[in-house]
Amino acid sequence: MSGAVVPPDPGFAERVRTSFSAQGVMRHLGAELQLVEPGRCVVALPFRAELTQQDGFFHAGVLTTIADSAAGYAAFTLMPADARVLTVELKINLLAPARGARAIARGEVVRAGRTLTVTRAEVVVTREGAEVAVALLQATMIALRPGGS
Amino acid sequence: MSGAVVPPDPGFAERVRTSFSAQGVMRHLGAELQLVEPGRCVVALPFRAELTQQDGFFHAGVLTTIADSAAGYAAFTLMPADARVLTVELKINLLAPARGARAIARGEVVRAGRTLTVTRAEVVVTREGAEVAVALLQATMIALRPGGS
Amino acid sequence: MSGAVVPPDPGFAERVRTSFSAQGVMRHLGAELQLVEPGRCVVALPFRAELTQQDGFFHAGVLTTIADSAAGYAAFTLMPADARVLTVELKINLLAPARGARAIARGEVVRAGRTLTVTRAEVVVTREGAEVAVALLQATMIALRPGGS
Amino acid sequence: MSGAVVPPDPGFAERVRTSFSAQGVMRHLGAELQLVEPGRCVVALPFRAELTQQDGFFHAGVLTTIADSAAGYAAFTLMPADARVLTVELKINLLAPARGARAIARGEVVRAGRTLTVTRAEVVVTREGAEVAVALLQATMIALRPGGS
Repeated sequence: MSGAVVPPDPGFAERVRTSFSAQGVMRHLGAELQLVEPGRCVVALPFRAELTQQDGFFHAGVLTTIADSAAGYAAFTLMPADARVLTVELKINLLAPARGARAIARGEVVRAGRTLTVTRAEVVVTREGAEVAVALLQATMIALRPGGS
Repeated sequence: MSGAVVPPDPGFAERVRTSFSAQGVMRHLGAELQLVEPGRCVVALPFRAELTQQDGFFHAGVLTTIADSAAGYAAFTLMPADARVLTVELKINLLAPARGARAIARGEVVRAGRTLTVTRAEVVVTREGAEVAVALLQATMIALRPGGS
Repeated sequence: MSGAVVPPDPGFAERVRTSFSAQGVMRHLGAELQLVEPGRCVVALPFRAELTQQDGFFHAGVLTTIADSAAGYAAFTLMPADARVLTVELKINLLAPARGARAIARGEVVRAGRTLTVTRAEVVVTREGAEVAVALLQATMIALRPGGS
Repeated sequence: MSGAVVPPDPGFAERVRTSFSAQGVMRHLGAELQLVEPGRCVVALPFRAELTQQDGFFHAGVLTTIADSAAGYAAFTLMPADARVLTVELKINLLAPARGARAIARGEVVRAGRTLTVTRAEVVVTREGAEVAVALLQATMIALRPGGS
């Protein structure tokens, strides 16, 4: 997203952290919120055998979960204080086997609208000190407001 | 998918069950393989607080994980005995808040090709004895063969 | 979509036809509106050399255009009289080379919401008297209302 | 895509131009191939009433058509001389009404594999001397080789 972005809610980072903490699945997977900035969010996930597909790498669904989270909270940073955020839909391409010590999902806002926000996230794994791109997500988020969407 | 389908590998069901059992994440989430038929696969997931998004419902990423699994294994039933299956890409629409006692993902093959298989999955939750549709997935799977795809 | 659907606007079919006629691209491609029912819409397109990709078959973009149109107008049938419809996003899988005398896109509503409607469309080509499935679309439509979406 | 890319076929640009010229639909819409580089391709389309949706702007299907073309030919630049390229699937988000004098689709390769190539394309319209982003595509292309991929 080009240009500086001023979130309508100055307390956006606290709001994201509170919401992230309320997600049981993030704790269950072991995901950590690494960065929250206007229009950006990074979620990291250390490798564990509990996160694998049949070949012993990160499962595509797990990568999608953290990519969705990073993208959704990137969108949430630019929403008003009374809004909730939900995923409308997402699409992800798996680029390479996700073999590595840690998966990192970097979400960003492509276009923030009043109701819908288009987002993108890249997922990399760290392997022998380098980053390998393993997935690319494009998703639509919705801001739900009190009294109707 | 219309018409009868004859899997090239008569041991397809056993092959799917072995692969499913090897997925650490399925055990970690608590997902169960409920049905394996030629071109079809059903995965069920009882609700737990460890699977939630911030409102206490099933997380979109969790629904995507079981939908991907059901669709991928539906594709796998029609692949040759020496093939491995990977998700190329997936797209999912979230239709309604996934509040319920159990999530069920029903995957099916739309078109099985030599290399690529197009699949679809519907996810429902059971709520007060009824099923509520909560997500719809469309995904591309690839058969990897020994000696190159 | 299960169950009977009662469109909020009894003049839905006329509204769809008027909007379809206003689309310059449908005339330019030669597309025809074949059926308008509550939650359903069918668009047909006779083959012409002006619609081809490099191998002489229907271009993927052309198939996407009529699939988007069929899905969008399926959604539009269930919207209020004062709404406009726009495509939020779409995803399409190409299943087979689209060689045939006519392409037919059948759109249907999967879930109609107040703001967003999830849709699906199948595209077939007619070839030697039979229908061959060539594409499968899943898309999100938005109802824009006077005074804000 | 990071890093310099050396196309396996030094005649890639000529190959792309020949294929583009063979697409009847590009001529029918009035699309022009503006740039062909390793892993990149730009397609431009002047506005005409023959390309519109019901509000008089570029139709989503038309934008998808040029985005698919730009992305597909970006992939094609990195394929071997004897390969053909087909779209496996695409997903596009429409970001804003596409009102403008010209639509420009810029495609690029995200990851080029032996069989599958993941691509991305941005579509902008030019309006009063500025560019406005109107669509974002993510798509999978396949290289078909003689003897079957």
